[in-house]
Amino acid sequence: MVSAPAFIAIDWGTTNRRAYAIAADGAVIDTLRDDRGVLSVPREAFAGEVADIRARLGDLPILCAGMVGSTRGWVDVPYRQCPAGLDALADGLVWVEPGRTAIVPGLSVNGASVSGDDRSDVMRGEEVQLLGAVAAGLAPADALLCQPGTHCKWARIGGGRVTGFRTAMTGEMFALLKGHSLLGDFLTGAVADGPAFRAGLALAQDDRLLSNLFGERAGVVLGHRDLGDTAARVSGLLIGTDVREQALDAGEAVYILADAALGDLYMAAVTAAGGVPVLLDSHTAFAAGITAIWKAYDGR
Amino acid sequence: MVSAPAFIAIDWGTTNRRAYAIAADGAVIDTLRDDRGVLSVPREAFAGEVADIRARLGDLPILCAGMVGSTRGWVDVPYRQCPAGLDALADGLVWVEPGRTAIVPGLSVNGASVSGDDRSDVMRGEEVQLLGAVAAGLAPADALLCQPGTHCKWARIGGGRVTGFRTAMTGEMFALLKGHSLLGDFLTGAVADGPAFRAGLALAQDDRLLSNLFGERAGVVLGHRDLGDTAARVSGLLIGTDVREQALDAGEAVYILADAALGDLYMAAVTAAGGVPVLLDSHTAFAAGITAIWKAYDGR
Repeated sequence: MVSAPAFIAIDWGTTNRRAYAIAADGAVIDTLRDDRGVLSVPREAFAGEVADIRARLGDLPILCAGMVGSTRGWVDVPYRQCPAGLDALADGLVWVEPGRTAIVPGLSVNGASVSGDDRSDVMRGEEVQLLGAVAAGLAPADALLCQPGTHCKWARIGGGRVTGFRTAMTGEMFALLKGHSLLGDFLTGAVADGPAFRAGLALAQDDRLLSNLFGERAGVVLGHRDLGDTAARVSGLLIGTDVREQALDAGEAVYILADAALGDLYMAAVTAAGGVPVLLDSHTAFAAGITAIWKAYDGR
Repeated sequence: MVSAPAFIAIDWGTTNRRAYAIAADGAVIDTLRDDRGVLSVPREAFAGEVADIRARLGDLPILCAGMVGSTRGWVDVPYRQCPAGLDALADGLVWVEPGRTAIVPGLSVNGASVSGDDRSDVMRGEEVQLLGAVAAGLAPADALLCQPGTHCKWARIGGGRVTGFRTAMTGEMFALLKGHSLLGDFLTGAVADGPAFRAGLALAQDDRLLSNLFGERAGVVLGHRDLGDTAARVSGLLIGTDVREQALDAGEAVYILADAALGDLYMAAVTAAGGVPVLLDSHTAFAAGITAIWKAYDGR
């Protein structure tokens, strides 16, 4: 017997979205994915968008997470400060259509003062996956989780809550270099784990990113490097720098939420840095996280 | 009595050029500067360009340095490998108009193998200023020189020759972030040495560039930072990272070839890193360097 869906969850990002029809026990009944990300939806069109999703997945309550809750989305939902767990996310739900459609808040790390050097950080959407990975038993309640991407999130989980996190511009940096820099014409090759990517990881250890990037171009210009290797080498240099910046303890486990392609690269980088990578399924984590929020709300 | 010019030197860069009419004793008699950089001159138009400069500064031999000797310039002049001094640059002159117009070669650092991790690097134009600073007595024959800019050059001089160098993409990185990144809208403020720039320098010391960049945006989003400070903070973070990557010895002198504005920033960064900055005049250094090359050629 197939369970009936109890609610719909939408992981609504900047350029894409994925909707899930989920049963009360957390089982995913149906999904859909398209490119109707926040940037392609005018503010006044969100209500119509969720009506359309209801027409396709069922006339059910909807929980949205991600950039839909940002200044560029439907409603600007206040961040919840770390430390925060799934209960805090459920507490912070903002109902844009009362009883029908809510938006999950993002998380923030707040530097203490305007003049000091305390660091601030923000996330929207990743928090559901990160805490969902713990809720699903994929990661322990005290762990370091990594969600690579345009903006790679590194989250410390303590007692099942996000105690702090850092966002690295790793993916955006590669895109900037490829799209707009002097190196752009050199970054046309494929990026995959292999000798060129590993060489980039090794290069990241000498802590000279700004000059090693230029050196990659010079190596090709002088005929010492294969142009086809440059993209993989630069990807290794950036991802290796990202991982090095986390200063992993020897043997420290890193739970990675990523698709297979990007997961492979971060697995290799974590291993090269002396950590122990564990690749988790992002969709399972998201479904578990949003179901826990739904239950926390529904049980009140 | 005003000396008669003996030759013309052109420092011909990507977007600008500066021409000098120089006497046999190295005195600069006249200069002109415009935006007819290499990118705005088709290859077949270079001969006409130098004829025009002769019409303005005198019918004299011309030595050109800079990107005019690159694949995008007039003729692709082979790099001279480090270690190399002014004598090697004079040896490597390529006469595009025999006896009339020559191009000074750039310098390279050549990694040893295609598969290894040895670093390569290239420069075109900066070598004349760097070696000229030593020739003019502005810097000692064994020194660390820094020429900030879009691509910041750090050159080790030993026995009056460039023994090696590294190029950091510091200025280009700031331009990429300002022009094309998520941080772009946050980088509209003025950049000058001051508390915000110094805070960026301090932040650079914790070796987490990729995530500290994102944190600058988050700090403003959360209201913990002044938007007007962000450009200066990010400039401090990048320049501080550039200087940190050089691993200066305590008290090490750094001879800086830059205009006053950029020179101020690098002076502050070198000081913050425990070095001793000395700001040199770029035009004096260029004139001394190109005159030494001219004399080495003319004396043969």
